[in-house]
Amino acid sequence: MHDRFAPFPPAATPGALLATVDTPALLLDLDAFERNLDRMQAAADAAGVQLRPHAKAHKCPAVALAQLARGAMGVCCQKASEALPFLRAGVGDVHISNELAAPAKAGPVAQWARHARLSVCVDDALQIEALAAATREAGSALGVLIEIDIGQGRCGVVDAPAVLRLLERLAPHPQLVFRGLQAYQGGLQHLRLRAERRDQALRAAERAGRVVSALESAGVRCATVTGGGTGSVEFDLESGVYTELQPGSYAFMDRDYADNEAGALRFEHALFVATRVMSTAAGTQAVVDAGLKSLTLECGLPVTWPAGGALRYTQANDEHGLIAVETGAPLPPLGRLLRLVPGHCDPTFNLHDELIAFRGERVEALWPIAARGHSR
Amino acid sequence: MHDRFAPFPPAATPGALLATVDTPALLLDLDAFERNLDRMQAAADAAGVQLRPHAKAHKCPAVALAQLARGAMGVCCQKASEALPFLRAGVGDVHISNELAAPAKAGPVAQWARHARLSVCVDDALQIEALAAATREAGSALGVLIEIDIGQGRCGVVDAPAVLRLLERLAPHPQLVFRGLQAYQGGLQHLRLRAERRDQALRAAERAGRVVSALESAGVRCATVTGGGTGSVEFDLESGVYTELQPGSYAFMDRDYADNEAGALRFEHALFVATRVMSTAAGTQAVVDAGLKSLTLECGLPVTWPAGGALRYTQANDEHGLIAVETGAPLPPLGRLLRLVPGHCDPTFNLHDELIAFRGERVEALWPIAARGHSR
Repeated sequence: MHDRFAPFPPAATPGALLATVDTPALLLDLDAFERNLDRMQAAADAAGVQLRPHAKAHKCPAVALAQLARGAMGVCCQKASEALPFLRAGVGDVHISNELAAPAKAGPVAQWARHARLSVCVDDALQIEALAAATREAGSALGVLIEIDIGQGRCGVVDAPAVLRLLERLAPHPQLVFRGLQAYQGGLQHLRLRAERRDQALRAAERAGRVVSALESAGVRCATVTGGGTGSVEFDLESGVYTELQPGSYAFMDRDYADNEAGALRFEHALFVATRVMSTAAGTQAVVDAGLKSLTLECGLPVTWPAGGALRYTQANDEHGLIAVETGAPLPPLGRLLRLVPGHCDPTFNLHDELIAFRGERVEALWPIAARGHSR
Repeated sequence: MHDRFAPFPPAATPGALLATVDTPALLLDLDAFERNLDRMQAAADAAGVQLRPHAKAHKCPAVALAQLARGAMGVCCQKASEALPFLRAGVGDVHISNELAAPAKAGPVAQWARHARLSVCVDDALQIEALAAATREAGSALGVLIEIDIGQGRCGVVDAPAVLRLLERLAPHPQLVFRGLQAYQGGLQHLRLRAERRDQALRAAERAGRVVSALESAGVRCATVTGGGTGSVEFDLESGVYTELQPGSYAFMDRDYADNEAGALRFEHALFVATRVMSTAAGTQAVVDAGLKSLTLECGLPVTWPAGGALRYTQANDEHGLIAVETGAPLPPLGRLLRLVPGHCDPTFNLHDELIAFRGERVEALWPIAARGHSR
């Protein structure tokens, strides 16, 4: 009855000039993105460490496939429901780097495990019981990693004896295959000074290493030790503790990560929010059409791009952003397209249904952010 | 090829116990919600002011239809693309309470205006030219409201002479029907003290009233003066300036609005984020499965519900929340369902694809948040 209301046009079409993109929109600079992927894969290869990039950062199967094509062994997801679009896109090895919050979530994971290599974290015997029941019912095998806390103070058991207690609970369930440990310290990823970040990363890795050694002394071998993030990856690679690393943001580089003092392994901004000037009526500032529903503020404000310009994003309302102009510089005109580097890439991706991938001045492809909102 | 991967089960089914809802999920307490709608409509009716609730708060057509059923004249949307799901759901009168950021957005709006009563804001002659061209091509008529700035310092022209200059630009386009003014002051909505909020709301309304009077002296009548929000509505209703009001949050009441000192017109918490305890391994805190991808922090942290309990949400990571427990109180067990009152309802709605409407202890319906992500 109401389809007489025509659809709203797509934000972009492949081949179109980037300047014609409807806003707000999430843009990916493919040249910068591909350089970022190449650099990280080369570093992992040089260190002999596997790369399992985190898909929670982007929720976009096309991004994951580009990482796999360069040598990534698989991806991480953070929620059970998040894994599905990646499995359906053909990612054959997905690690759910988190505990499942309810026994019911184990059912679909166990079903999927009949057709792909899947693993999940545990830090409590109840989780093991739920996974055992679900895999028994599905007739599948599932990898299990025991999460240990190496300083973040979030999930994970604290020491080798606690790991051994969980291994006892795993033992009666041969379809639950112990793969090793997950050890992630998110708290150090944004320490601004490289020396401080290095110090904390090495300490965290040592803490993980001590658990691995204690388990070895008890006759338990950890085939996998997985963890790490974009802020610590250069140190994690050299730690000798991790067998695989989980960075996600390196492919995109938000403002928060760019504020870290960089080391030898550097990444470029590849992710932008495109926005347009929608009001200059105040005469002293510009209002743009990207606010809290197009970018998130928990890690601070976005910055305009290229850096060093006269425009500064100063405030986000739900659907508006305020742009201050340097004294003496002209106001940007109504309709002017601006690029913003978002403060924090993961939750920003989660606001958008598609990623407009461009090269130079042309739109190349529209990539569905298929796991957007898959938070269960 | 990959549909062998079964779908992830729905978060809830109508008739099920609320305790079985998969998390994280957005919940609506229908009893509280309906009381909120009734109270606001009764207050508007008593004041002889029309109610045009803001749909940007919830993006959910079923919510809008419940408001219309009680007497609301129509809804506001904040973006052109946001209007479409409401039009398709049968909302016959939609005001886009914002300027369109690009001429291209005027095309679909003008097309839709052939089948519904639509209006849009302007604060620049260029916007008028775009609307004129699009309505000419569509053969439609469109309501136009000139936005004035009454103290927020965002969009809108500053005085009556500026309105008159825009009216000159409207005059050659009879298909663009001048309806009056939009005057909204978002900056005062969260002043905590009622007296301060009252003072600022009356000042803002007076500022709007002076422009209306000046236009009347120039022979221009404003049939509509639209604005107001949940924080100022009790004062806006009595101002004698507004002919219609645009509150949105009153239907749900987030933590930020509840922190305001209330007046005679009170609303209840009807919106909750359901979350489950997913780890207690640390022994000193609980970790829940709702973080920045299920709620937003720009207006502060969520609180646990019912109020006054021993649990406090202290930190949100992307997919995790940390829950501190009062000294001496027990840790909530793994899997325990908690309800959170989100800090800020609008961007929180924008993270979820459906609203789980419940009554008492039972799920009653799943309402699609059909305009989620419609930010263009």
